Amino acid sequence: MSEVQRPRLCSFVHQNRHSYGAIVDGGIVDLGALHGAQWATLDAAVADGALAQIAESAATRTADFALDDISFDIPITNPGKIICVGVNYPDRNAEYKDGQELPPYPSIFIRFPESFVGHDQAVVRPPESEKLDYEGELVLVIGREGRRIPEDSALDHVAAVTLCNEGTIRDWVRHAKFNVTQGKNFDRTGAIGPWLVPFEDESQIADIELTTRVNGEVRQNDRTARMMFGFKYLISYISTFTTLKPGDVIVTGTPTGAGARLDPPVWLKPGDVVEVEAEGVGVLSNRVEDEQ
Amino acid sequence: MSEVQRPRLCSFVHQNRHSYGAIVDGGIVDLGALHGAQWATLDAAVADGALAQIAESAATRTADFALDDISFDIPITNPGKIICVGVNYPDRNAEYKDGQELPPYPSIFIRFPESFVGHDQAVVRPPESEKLDYEGELVLVIGREGRRIPEDSALDHVAAVTLCNEGTIRDWVRHAKFNVTQGKNFDRTGAIGPWLVPFEDESQIADIELTTRVNGEVRQNDRTARMMFGFKYLISYISTFTTLKPGDVIVTGTPTGAGARLDPPVWLKPGDVVEVEAEGVGVLSNRVEDEQ
Repeated sequence: MSEVQRPRLCSFVHQNRHSYGAIVDGGIVDLGALHGAQWATLDAAVADGALAQIAESAATRTADFALDDISFDIPITNPGKIICVGVNYPDRNAEYKDGQELPPYPSIFIRFPESFVGHDQAVVRPPESEKLDYEGELVLVIGREGRRIPEDSALDHVAAVTLCNEGTIRDWVRHAKFNVTQGKNFDRTGAIGPWLVPFEDESQIADIELTTRVNGEVRQNDRTARMMFGFKYLISYISTFTTLKPGDVIVTGTPTGAGARLDPPVWLKPGDVVEVEAEGVGVLSNRVEDEQ
Repeated sequence: MSEVQRPRLCSFVHQNRHSYGAIVDGGIVDLGALHGAQWATLDAAVADGALAQIAESAATRTADFALDDISFDIPITNPGKIICVGVNYPDRNAEYKDGQELPPYPSIFIRFPESFVGHDQAVVRPPESEKLDYEGELVLVIGREGRRIPEDSALDHVAAVTLCNEGTIRDWVRHAKFNVTQGKNFDRTGAIGPWLVPFEDESQIADIELTTRVNGEVRQNDRTARMMFGFKYLISYISTFTTLKPGDVIVTGTPTGAGARLDPPVWLKPGDVVEVEAEGVGVLSNRVEDEQ
């Protein structure tokens, strides 16, 4: 099966300079050097609907830097709202359970930018807990403002797609009776990236495989067509209460198979490598370290 | 009882120009006109520890504008993290109930800036619900970065105090099993203000009266000394998981007496005026309108 290679646009740091670029053979084209006067960041290009344009300008160029010479930032370096959806794929064993109805609405929580690192950066296990867990998810990046967006036109508001390891400190998720805020917001316990793939066509997300591996072992694997709350519904539902704006990010929920759900639970430990992969997007990879 | 009149610093709009200033007899001193080159916004002055300095420069000046000629913005116009604490004052009837233990940790949720308006602006009831409710709360504005802040030094990180009507759409709070996100984040359903009072002394917050009135009728009334989770604990606990930064805001929880807890419940309706008042801070007042 041949697959279109879509542009891959990242934010990066090279010798202490923050920029953004396109992944090409042999490395990265420095788009910030070309377009920085017009769009200071990849965030600004997203807000201006310019991803296709900047990607085009990279097509005829060769790499300015090898990937080994840069480090990845979170692709949207200064996200607006980071809106996360709770577990959003059916339990594979659901057919064996009686009377378990689908929840009527998705569970929604918020993460702060500080809780994420970029691709290939260390995700950290804080000294407060040994229960660091992974959750692989597909991420929609909003490119056009809207409130009460109809499902019909929901995807018109999506600028790009990326991935998330929505790393979680399990024993802090239920510190309080409601609200998972604490366990979802330890600094640098999650990751977003590796890059943005501009969104052009529903087929990019409608039924793609989403896989999470730990040290190469598959832990989560499902297809987006099986999501309980689909992408269009999520955009429409979320925009009922809050205005979605360019640079906002929707982390669309994880399949079953997080470490907490294994029997016995298996937590991430220093040295582990978590990979989140989706067809047509790429692989987000992060090693785990103890917080220094 | 004589009371120190501390500075009152606000963000405002005058003839479409955004600025910040100090409340004085007869109106407002335009501090943005004086200090804008150094601190473009009140947020910048907070981050730079400059509130006392800019307040001092207003002391010898007369008003540039009457209050009738400006409109109030949220005092921190571009807040970082808006971290809210669930109900944080004991039930006044707790002595009549058996076996109800204090929760071990506070409930924490997040609101977006879009969910708030400034003092004297209309709070809106969205067409999706008739269950708009008030919650009066004291707000701490963070002025100095910190992680894992000990309670001993917690108040060193507070730059200012203000108030919040943490307006809530009750029937959307429990759309999902966990997480109150939806009902807490309808655009313009809450308010922050009226101004910042620079924080200098623990006595400003340690045991002050906090009152919420609807159309002049007292609905919530308690004292901060009775908070279940005190200010120092909240700063220490929250900074365990996330780095607090200048411009972050902690909305410290509401007393009993919200409309949902009346029997039968009483919801806010267009034309109602909600006032949140705290000793030494001021009165945050907002009328309710149906969303247009």
